[in-house]
Amino acid sequence: MPPGGAHETDVIIIGAGPCGLFAVFELGLLGAKAHLIDILDKPGGQCAELYPEKPILDIPAIKSITGEDLTQKLLEQIAPFEPKFHLSEMAVSLDKGEDGRWLIETDLGTRVTAPVICIAAGGGSFQPKKPPIPGVEDFEGETVFYAVRKRETFKDKDIVIAGGGDSALDWTLNLEPVARSVTLIHRRPDFRAAPDSVERMRALANEEKIDFHVAQIKGLKGSGGQISAVTVEAEGKGRYDIPCEAMLAFYGLTMKLGPIAEFGVNLAENRIEVDTEKFETSVPGIFCIGDMAWYPGKLKLILSGFHEAALMSHGAFHYAFPDKKLKFQHTTSAKGLQAQIAR
Amino acid sequence: MPPGGAHETDVIIIGAGPCGLFAVFELGLLGAKAHLIDILDKPGGQCAELYPEKPILDIPAIKSITGEDLTQKLLEQIAPFEPKFHLSEMAVSLDKGEDGRWLIETDLGTRVTAPVICIAAGGGSFQPKKPPIPGVEDFEGETVFYAVRKRETFKDKDIVIAGGGDSALDWTLNLEPVARSVTLIHRRPDFRAAPDSVERMRALANEEKIDFHVAQIKGLKGSGGQISAVTVEAEGKGRYDIPCEAMLAFYGLTMKLGPIAEFGVNLAENRIEVDTEKFETSVPGIFCIGDMAWYPGKLKLILSGFHEAALMSHGAFHYAFPDKKLKFQHTTSAKGLQAQIAR
Repeated sequence: MPPGGAHETDVIIIGAGPCGLFAVFELGLLGAKAHLIDILDKPGGQCAELYPEKPILDIPAIKSITGEDLTQKLLEQIAPFEPKFHLSEMAVSLDKGEDGRWLIETDLGTRVTAPVICIAAGGGSFQPKKPPIPGVEDFEGETVFYAVRKRETFKDKDIVIAGGGDSALDWTLNLEPVARSVTLIHRRPDFRAAPDSVERMRALANEEKIDFHVAQIKGLKGSGGQISAVTVEAEGKGRYDIPCEAMLAFYGLTMKLGPIAEFGVNLAENRIEVDTEKFETSVPGIFCIGDMAWYPGKLKLILSGFHEAALMSHGAFHYAFPDKKLKFQHTTSAKGLQAQIAR
Repeated sequence: MPPGGAHETDVIIIGAGPCGLFAVFELGLLGAKAHLIDILDKPGGQCAELYPEKPILDIPAIKSITGEDLTQKLLEQIAPFEPKFHLSEMAVSLDKGEDGRWLIETDLGTRVTAPVICIAAGGGSFQPKKPPIPGVEDFEGETVFYAVRKRETFKDKDIVIAGGGDSALDWTLNLEPVARSVTLIHRRPDFRAAPDSVERMRALANEEKIDFHVAQIKGLKGSGGQISAVTVEAEGKGRYDIPCEAMLAFYGLTMKLGPIAEFGVNLAENRIEVDTEKFETSVPGIFCIGDMAWYPGKLKLILSGFHEAALMSHGAFHYAFPDKKLKFQHTTSAKGLQAQIAR
């Protein structure tokens, strides 16, 4: 859903990887609704982002499945429970209201309130790697960006795009019709990106619709947050400036615990300590499942996250519905559940 | 494999239900081999025996699957690790050898030795329900049986088969060509069995190849373990004797903890206490996973058994290979594993 606005639900799941997705199912079986927040622009987490096409061989009863297909199957399985997704958003702050419920706010201003938080953030949030350019921090968020939030920002501007992966290529192709001029800078003539995108970029360069420089970025020029040029160095050409009004740098993603580190839960080596009864953290009402959870014996396996999601849901139920009695039903014998799931 | 003989392996898994089957996979990933012992005549446990055709809806990433299909998928997934099955056998005794390894013996005399035992026996062993016939225990195992181990036992004998389910019908049809005479006794004219079997039984009765009595069994006659007649009572006919040399009674199956209760592990309400780090019991080297395991928060879910199998395997590894170092690898990145599994 579009960013912003105030929402209420039973459980806020931070992270829409396989464990977060399956948690929707287990919570749904108990009648609890969920909103999911993920910094990526699609569900699936590491599976979808880091190895969408690699076969995963240890999902029980599935001989081989790609991360992309696993995500798709989980999305189909949880669809009857109508999860709400807040994608391309990062949960940045957590507060406890006077009524005991939690309020999560994202970097795009979305506010979600719920009695239960379930952290399913995997290895952490994917965050852009900062390019090793001296003084870049003076322009960050003003005229130098590591992600495109709105294409409009770059309308009719002279922009430089730096990087050699899919993001750099995709945004070169996507912003070319919008920007006044686009200059792509990569340190090597080869790219680690879809061959088709590379070909399309080269075609645009041949038609002189964009500029492509094989060069190293040495510094930025400008003042008061406004970039005016990128200083580069190229073999045989030496140092020169490329004038611009904005720069996008795509140097890959790194995983960081991020704002979750400030949520007040006990940490153990950048992971979150939980019990093995309900996978609850040191803070009542905040649970943690999947790769980010730590307990004795923990293995970072997707199938463990599924188990953790099930037991977490039983723990979460009592916060979500303090007056209700939990009726444990097997899906094979619960007629009401079957009707709901088969919808 | 045929019963009997002495075998050695890394892990003996008691129970070939979904958790026991998946344990083969997780052990296999670590290079450990397994033998499975199950009292049923096929793998799958409760899934295959109690609800082969009911849809299970909470296997992660599988929207709906029958117990039979789940069993089939697991068998395919574990095939590369070449598990050995001892079916229609019950693990009846456990001993520790001088070398510290365990010896399991089955009721059919099969002996398997291994450094690790993994109990994955679900709700317990399926055992025949004893018919409520006064004095039946005087003949049990001598001339009154609750299962057919060898058809030869009934060759050229006058036999009575009691019951109205699939087992009673199947064995009536199967033993008719072998026995001198077969008399089927059921308290009602209707059966809870495959309609085709009922039809074939009725055809045999019409041809006078078997006898079928709608009657209640009131007692047995005979001495020294040798049955000579079954006393029955039928509406309108009163009480009468049906002479015979052997009886088979099929009154359904019940689940019992069985001989496992004598293995020396700590029990909690007919379940086995385990830790949540390795799912090890109170006896070092004996692990327990699946429905029979108990720990705080335990839910009897197949997906929990899968997680338990994974952590158990890591615990078992150190008993199986005390001198080796465990290398944890994800299936997505371990090339050797991929080749092995894809074989």
